[in-house]
Amino acid sequence: MKKNISISLGEIAERLKGELKGPANISISGVASVTSASPGDITFITSKKYLKGLAQSRASAVIIPRDMDWPYLPSIRVENPYYSLISLLHLFYDLSHKPTGVDERAVIGKNVHIGKDVSIYPFVYIDDGVTIGDYVIIYPWVFIGKDSSIGDYSTIYPNVTIREEIKIGRHVIIHSGAVIGSDGFGYIYHDGKHTKIPQVGGVIIEDDVEIGAGSTVDRATLGNTVIKKGTKIDNLVQIAHNVVVGEDCIMAAQTGIAGSTEIGKRVTFAGQAGVTGHIQIGDNVTVAGKAGVTKNIRNDQIVSGMPAIPHKNWLEIMAIFRELPQLKKRILDLEKEIRKKKD
Amino acid sequence: MKKNISISLGEIAERLKGELKGPANISISGVASVTSASPGDITFITSKKYLKGLAQSRASAVIIPRDMDWPYLPSIRVENPYYSLISLLHLFYDLSHKPTGVDERAVIGKNVHIGKDVSIYPFVYIDDGVTIGDYVIIYPWVFIGKDSSIGDYSTIYPNVTIREEIKIGRHVIIHSGAVIGSDGFGYIYHDGKHTKIPQVGGVIIEDDVEIGAGSTVDRATLGNTVIKKGTKIDNLVQIAHNVVVGEDCIMAAQTGIAGSTEIGKRVTFAGQAGVTGHIQIGDNVTVAGKAGVTKNIRNDQIVSGMPAIPHKNWLEIMAIFRELPQLKKRILDLEKEIRKKKD
Amino acid sequence: MKKNISISLGEIAERLKGELKGPANISISGVASVTSASPGDITFITSKKYLKGLAQSRASAVIIPRDMDWPYLPSIRVENPYYSLISLLHLFYDLSHKPTGVDERAVIGKNVHIGKDVSIYPFVYIDDGVTIGDYVIIYPWVFIGKDSSIGDYSTIYPNVTIREEIKIGRHVIIHSGAVIGSDGFGYIYHDGKHTKIPQVGGVIIEDDVEIGAGSTVDRATLGNTVIKKGTKIDNLVQIAHNVVVGEDCIMAAQTGIAGSTEIGKRVTFAGQAGVTGHIQIGDNVTVAGKAGVTKNIRNDQIVSGMPAIPHKNWLEIMAIFRELPQLKKRILDLEKEIRKKKD
Repeated sequence: MKKNISISLGEIAERLKGELKGPANISISGVASVTSASPGDITFITSKKYLKGLAQSRASAVIIPRDMDWPYLPSIRVENPYYSLISLLHLFYDLSHKPTGVDERAVIGKNVHIGKDVSIYPFVYIDDGVTIGDYVIIYPWVFIGKDSSIGDYSTIYPNVTIREEIKIGRHVIIHSGAVIGSDGFGYIYHDGKHTKIPQVGGVIIEDDVEIGAGSTVDRATLGNTVIKKGTKIDNLVQIAHNVVVGEDCIMAAQTGIAGSTEIGKRVTFAGQAGVTGHIQIGDNVTVAGKAGVTKNIRNDQIVSGMPAIPHKNWLEIMAIFRELPQLKKRILDLEKEIRKKKD
Repeated sequence: MKKNISISLGEIAERLKGELKGPANISISGVASVTSASPGDITFITSKKYLKGLAQSRASAVIIPRDMDWPYLPSIRVENPYYSLISLLHLFYDLSHKPTGVDERAVIGKNVHIGKDVSIYPFVYIDDGVTIGDYVIIYPWVFIGKDSSIGDYSTIYPNVTIREEIKIGRHVIIHSGAVIGSDGFGYIYHDGKHTKIPQVGGVIIEDDVEIGAGSTVDRATLGNTVIKKGTKIDNLVQIAHNVVVGEDCIMAAQTGIAGSTEIGKRVTFAGQAGVTGHIQIGDNVTVAGKAGVTKNIRNDQIVSGMPAIPHKNWLEIMAIFRELPQLKKRILDLEKEIRKKKD
Repeated sequence: MKKNISISLGEIAERLKGELKGPANISISGVASVTSASPGDITFITSKKYLKGLAQSRASAVIIPRDMDWPYLPSIRVENPYYSLISLLHLFYDLSHKPTGVDERAVIGKNVHIGKDVSIYPFVYIDDGVTIGDYVIIYPWVFIGKDSSIGDYSTIYPNVTIREEIKIGRHVIIHSGAVIGSDGFGYIYHDGKHTKIPQVGGVIIEDDVEIGAGSTVDRATLGNTVIKKGTKIDNLVQIAHNVVVGEDCIMAAQTGIAGSTEIGKRVTFAGQAGVTGHIQIGDNVTVAGKAGVTKNIRNDQIVSGMPAIPHKNWLEIMAIFRELPQLKKRILDLEKEIRKKKD
């Protein structure tokens, strides 16, 4: 929630450890983007390409990169304006949550251990044997199945389902509608029908992971599906059973990872990417939007297309793909020339 | 719910302002598609290509376009049979909802303003400062966060999450499992990890918008994510932070729009389309199924493919794409010819 | 839940009707994959390609196909080790559910018929006229709309919405967040805006169907959307209004089927596949991952690509697609040769 306060530009510069150019006593009451800023707001740009927009902004001050200069407005020069934005938002918004305790309309099973200063909203359902850490926030209609655990400082938004025997780390955020630990999609075709393989494994979500609205992480058949430390998953992403996602990955919306695939560290998936099952993707790989990865990918690759190939090759091929009508024409012309010569 | 009534064909013709051919006193008790109609039902076709099916239909009467003739059944000729279907459904089905008031098992926060003739079901959670308009229907397990508002005549189906500071207009329908106002997917990679940018903006859903089951509309980082008047969004669609969707757009299922993209009016997205972030799409654009838009699109374009290009070009290229084996053969033949000539 | 038991290898061999090679009295206390097995576990492999991994496994015994031999560990030879895994899991895990009755915090409407030995959790909402079969399990925050029915032995996980007039068969499993019977996506563009067509049809889910987390099955405009016997649907799948999915299909995650399409028996969709509306797909068809089906497909086809074509053709074309830069070079060389000759 926006705080109703004013802070002097000088104090802001100090908080951001930035270099102030302009009067320190200007009063700033909000943060806004270049185009939506009003007088009294501070805005920010991250590179010179936004200078044109800045020239028309109604903001009262601007955060700019250290190597830039903008004489038309009071400015604060910082190393990384985008990173400074985080501090700015903490200055102008109340992002804290006052613990509300355990609401009496929540259902709490047997042998449940609940830490201190939690917020457990009405209509939450916590099954037997669950452990909830300190400062955890659990919004209404969150299900936490038998023997699962939620680490300290984690937030679970409304309408999330966390099934039984799931381990959620500390500082984890799970957005509304997400489902953690639903059955993996495993059947055996036998005697003319698909027989379900019981999915008895679990899910481990490590510290500092964020999982987007409506995303699904299936439990393993045996063993665990794992999302490692620091990985951020956007909305409507599917993580199938027995997948292992490495540390600090970024998965944009509507990406899907099929069963038993292993993904390295710092891998980035753009939107609607897909990865087939039972393969390995190395560290620092980037998978382009809508790409479909069907084979192992070594470290440090950028891949595009369906099936995914190195991005450079894909760019080169797609340039020619768009020329196909002309290429066909050139083949036709060559054939005519040859025929002419024959005659 | 189907009403248990019979209406004479004459009365139906009058209601639809259509031209009756056949006896007015035939008694009609239901509406059905051509293939599933039983005696007593009225059916409809929208063009001549369905005449073959109509010949085998067991319906007792048919709605046809004004420029058609069908002598084998009592018929009503109208301007637009598909549009007339809406009136027909209102005749034969009870589509009304009797207000049930505020159930005592719902949780209503402080300073909540609730309009007249609402239906607020058990287990709804309405946080402080929320405004609910007249005739609003809110099904069980809907969360409405602090200071959000829902306009008159809107319906929110079960298990929907609407986070804090969200503005929902009038006559809006939000289907089950949808999430409005989850955090935008914004991080800064700094000191070897992804640090979350607080998402302090909101979402504005204008009047007459419909949002499908399981769809997600993220809140803005700063400012608002906006879905303008009359836009209809299907199931499992992702709208990222700071996106602006213009009026009267159609977005089929599993479409995804990345952050800060702006979409014009009357834009149509077929299923599983994707749009990259920070671009503009003009008015009256059509994006084909599975297309991936990576660049600005001017008004009135139809685009296909990944990356998306004008549909006409795509069709021409794809025709040649399918001929690639023959083209390669022709190149080989040319090479042989040339070599022969050389010898 | 894992049982805390030990079973002799001899008894396991008997239960699986397998051929034991090794001592019958070895005590086995768990099942695990080749890589994660500990001493005391039994593991399994399905083909020779996993022998290398098996050589390093710490398992105490292994299930292998009847035509294989593995002298380095006690083994049980069976017809289909993967199918035997199901029996093994039933031996070592407690997969039963003890009925808990109808919780008093559930809301049960008028004229609701509830079978014997059900488990209806707190905060469930069952509307008027609903029928619930025997041994049904309904987890918290499941909505079951007016006049819907759930057959015997079905399980509905938390946060599922089943709207009014929906028929769910026996032995059906619906995972968390799924939505059955949301309105079909139908509008008529008239007088400059999209007018909603009331969606008055229903949904029929036949016996032995499983529907994944977050998947959506829309109700029909008129008539029914149908998912036939034995079909298994993964997470985040979209089934539009009036679609008919045949028996024993497999639909992997994030697949989408547009309105009124009919799908035959035993059709397999790999992940993120899409099918356009109003078409027919025959029996035993396989649709590759990310493929987009735009036309009718006859029985027994395998299709790939967007638009989808026979998989064999697609493979041949994609091989040449990747050679496009070389092909263009060869055309250029030919042109040079021709020009040279001309001079």
